[in-house]
Amino acid sequence: MAEKPKKPQKLKARLPRGLEDRDPAAIRATREMVEKIRAVYELYGFEPVETPAMEYTDALGKFLPDQDRPNEGVFSFQDDDEQWISLRYDLTAPLARYVGERYGTDGLVLPYRSYRVGYVFRNEKPGPGRFRQFMQFDADTVGSATPAADAEICMMAADTMEGLGVARGQYVVKVNNRKVLDGVLEAIGLAGEENAARRLTVLRAIDKLDKFSADEVRKLLGPGRWDGGEEGKGDFTKGANLSAAEADVVLAITKPREDWKEAIAAAEIYLAKSQVGQAGVSELEEIAKLVTASGYGADRIKIDPSVVRGLEYYTGPVYEVELLLDTKDEKGRPVRFGSVGGGGRYDGLVSRFRGEPVPATGFSIGVSRLQAALTLLGKLDTRPEVGPVVVTVFDRDRVADYQKMVASLRTAGIRAELYLGNPKNMGNQLKYADRRNSPCVIIQGSDEKARGELQIKDLIEGAKAAAAIASNQEWRETRPAQFSCSEADLVTKVREVLARHDVKWG
Amino acid sequence: MAEKPKKPQKLKARLPRGLEDRDPAAIRATREMVEKIRAVYELYGFEPVETPAMEYTDALGKFLPDQDRPNEGVFSFQDDDEQWISLRYDLTAPLARYVGERYGTDGLVLPYRSYRVGYVFRNEKPGPGRFRQFMQFDADTVGSATPAADAEICMMAADTMEGLGVARGQYVVKVNNRKVLDGVLEAIGLAGEENAARRLTVLRAIDKLDKFSADEVRKLLGPGRWDGGEEGKGDFTKGANLSAAEADVVLAITKPREDWKEAIAAAEIYLAKSQVGQAGVSELEEIAKLVTASGYGADRIKIDPSVVRGLEYYTGPVYEVELLLDTKDEKGRPVRFGSVGGGGRYDGLVSRFRGEPVPATGFSIGVSRLQAALTLLGKLDTRPEVGPVVVTVFDRDRVADYQKMVASLRTAGIRAELYLGNPKNMGNQLKYADRRNSPCVIIQGSDEKARGELQIKDLIEGAKAAAAIASNQEWRETRPAQFSCSEADLVTKVREVLARHDVKWG
Repeated sequence: MAEKPKKPQKLKARLPRGLEDRDPAAIRATREMVEKIRAVYELYGFEPVETPAMEYTDALGKFLPDQDRPNEGVFSFQDDDEQWISLRYDLTAPLARYVGERYGTDGLVLPYRSYRVGYVFRNEKPGPGRFRQFMQFDADTVGSATPAADAEICMMAADTMEGLGVARGQYVVKVNNRKVLDGVLEAIGLAGEENAARRLTVLRAIDKLDKFSADEVRKLLGPGRWDGGEEGKGDFTKGANLSAAEADVVLAITKPREDWKEAIAAAEIYLAKSQVGQAGVSELEEIAKLVTASGYGADRIKIDPSVVRGLEYYTGPVYEVELLLDTKDEKGRPVRFGSVGGGGRYDGLVSRFRGEPVPATGFSIGVSRLQAALTLLGKLDTRPEVGPVVVTVFDRDRVADYQKMVASLRTAGIRAELYLGNPKNMGNQLKYADRRNSPCVIIQGSDEKARGELQIKDLIEGAKAAAAIASNQEWRETRPAQFSCSEADLVTKVREVLARHDVKWG
Repeated sequence: MAEKPKKPQKLKARLPRGLEDRDPAAIRATREMVEKIRAVYELYGFEPVETPAMEYTDALGKFLPDQDRPNEGVFSFQDDDEQWISLRYDLTAPLARYVGERYGTDGLVLPYRSYRVGYVFRNEKPGPGRFRQFMQFDADTVGSATPAADAEICMMAADTMEGLGVARGQYVVKVNNRKVLDGVLEAIGLAGEENAARRLTVLRAIDKLDKFSADEVRKLLGPGRWDGGEEGKGDFTKGANLSAAEADVVLAITKPREDWKEAIAAAEIYLAKSQVGQAGVSELEEIAKLVTASGYGADRIKIDPSVVRGLEYYTGPVYEVELLLDTKDEKGRPVRFGSVGGGGRYDGLVSRFRGEPVPATGFSIGVSRLQAALTLLGKLDTRPEVGPVVVTVFDRDRVADYQKMVASLRTAGIRAELYLGNPKNMGNQLKYADRRNSPCVIIQGSDEKARGELQIKDLIEGAKAAAAIASNQEWRETRPAQFSCSEADLVTKVREVLARHDVKWG
């Protein structure tokens, strides 16, 4: 039997999951945020740099947290010459490549303070609030090993939050130092390349402290943990095989406390055995001293040995910016924002290209994530902007006249447009102007034209009046907020309407 | 024999060809351009929209000019579920998808005027000034079939050039209508789906008129053309197989002329036979009428039947913005800029998703290309910005004091930074400040500290003085442009230095 001829299939307009289109309010809010962050970074002497969205895969390296399989989490494709190219998954790896290319040349003044903003791409399973394309805004200092560089980044992070309208007390920058934990692990006997995997297991176990109880994390530090709660139930996560005493000291030093010195004291015996550990403590002391001298109290920048950050490449101070506000989502459920940015010192990232140590420290703000938080908190203006003045088309053979009115408004700096849809129905034109959020519309029929006049309909006033008027009858009789003026007065009269409602455009 | 152990190979820091890093001056210039373009588009009532950098490959379609092989010119990869995803190669195809998804819903007010700016990606052979990532700034009107929509885009293009500082007379917006040529081809007998390939061959032949003589193009319209100049020499390009008379009329109508009516007259006999052709001519007349009524003369918007534009999908008016300036490149060779933007009506692009006609017209500025042109023309400020005030480190145990000075300058809104390099050599610190283009540096040794004073070294004044001073001896003795002040006066005195040199930051 012959098959029925298939109908040509209509193409479905859709986006891949984890990607989104953005509307004018979201775009405006991002622009405002970016400008405010930029202002703080430039005040700190950081200069912009921009790298492309794609890089050689090997130059980016594999530094995504929690990605065990190679190439997982990254969008990649092969170039003509067989070399692999990937979309950047953060803004730190491209900076390392940028610096690696210019290190030691006149093209790079050291220490190099720079900032960059842009989209990054993660080939991950998307979820609520988790996208495959999102914006980051980074600042880094390359070529300086002093804790003053780290302290500066922390102060800048605090100032950035305040620049964005997050009040003091609503955020905190938490600072720790990887060397402290590394020192403890060294004292336990987990130093050296051969223990790198176990150290990472410890790191990831601690990173779970915000999700799991200390007892559950203790399992991950020790023999391992069954998802289902008891042996044989659910998946098994291998542990770091620390002894009970060793797990105790790791948990003691990472326990959240008011006074960070207590955490250090709790691990004193171990830290005393490790030069790295002692260096870590004294770097934290130096940072505390510098930020205090500059007037940043613990309400803004707080040393907190419970902070680890998932990335393997950190080698010294690490920091995290937390929003301390709880709020409700659209469905009234409480939302805790937590971390909206963070970073740390990564002295090994640039040296991959150089074969010599290159100190570097940096900080990244998740702009998309922070924007979601600030929007929920009401810190961003997301009201629709006032639209353009709409000049309607009454007589379709006089489009050139209407176009001329539009041109005269635009020349005067007033946002304006000609109605470009089918002009046969004036009701549709007014409805269009309403949906465009227009402040007023211009109407000119042949009668008005003959008198050299036109009608201006004030839509903002009209909406207010409509709300106050009881009956349709009354509405039709009074026609509030509509008046005539002479053609020559168009710009003046429209300006009056705009001034009356305090309309200001972007 | 045992192999020698290989040394670990150092990773090479490099970018794939056709991609570039961008410096502060270029970034600032782009931002300025984008803001100026945005201001004009918003004056015209266009609103922003943003789509992601990647889309389903089938949703983007294959609309790159001069790309015969499928997928050529596009960066693509397969998603987890085997579907193909591509990086956007322009901003029109994503808009068509965006509109297709929302057409007929409350989420889209029609006619829909929108603009968008962003990077696009072409997997093409890069060359001088030809990159694989570059920026476009587009504006489109969807849902309006009237030539008034096209006229508006042309006026907006002209205003944009002037907004960017290109003076009247230094640019022109050229307008044509595909229907005119289509009408001629219909009269010749090249209408219908079965002749689409031949029509495209004609289009591409005409597109070569700026590179080849009319005689060479005549070969491409006729039997075909040998690259090497005579039969059998070089590559052969197949022709459209028009007769000599048919090629004549195509060349007559596309010949550049002062008065476009002459071009129409030259093809009159053919155009009279085609409804499409007549519609094309009357649409051009309508556009001319509308722009003239709004005060845009032929020095700004010029009907020009020689303009074709390479893209297949245009269905009506097409436009092109040309810079009329010649200039010289860095090596003194003359550079003709030509087209820096263009567009046209593409009524079929959205309808791929809808199965119903959706009129649309739009315009794209090649921001990267235009920026290169404006830079060469001196229309963009590419001088390095003045850097931050640098507070030097004289006594390394007093870093907290210096950090505090930096904090007080920043709090006063003055860009400032602490020297974060190795402080042992003051000469290096001053050299750093010079290379950072700093206006002044702050120095405080233990003597000054004891007196509650500090030194301010005015680097701008110093550079002027150095140019005027004859000997090193004199320099050392006078130490121009360096003075002390009390610690308490730091902000006031730095402000005076900045004011003296009229330093204003971005």
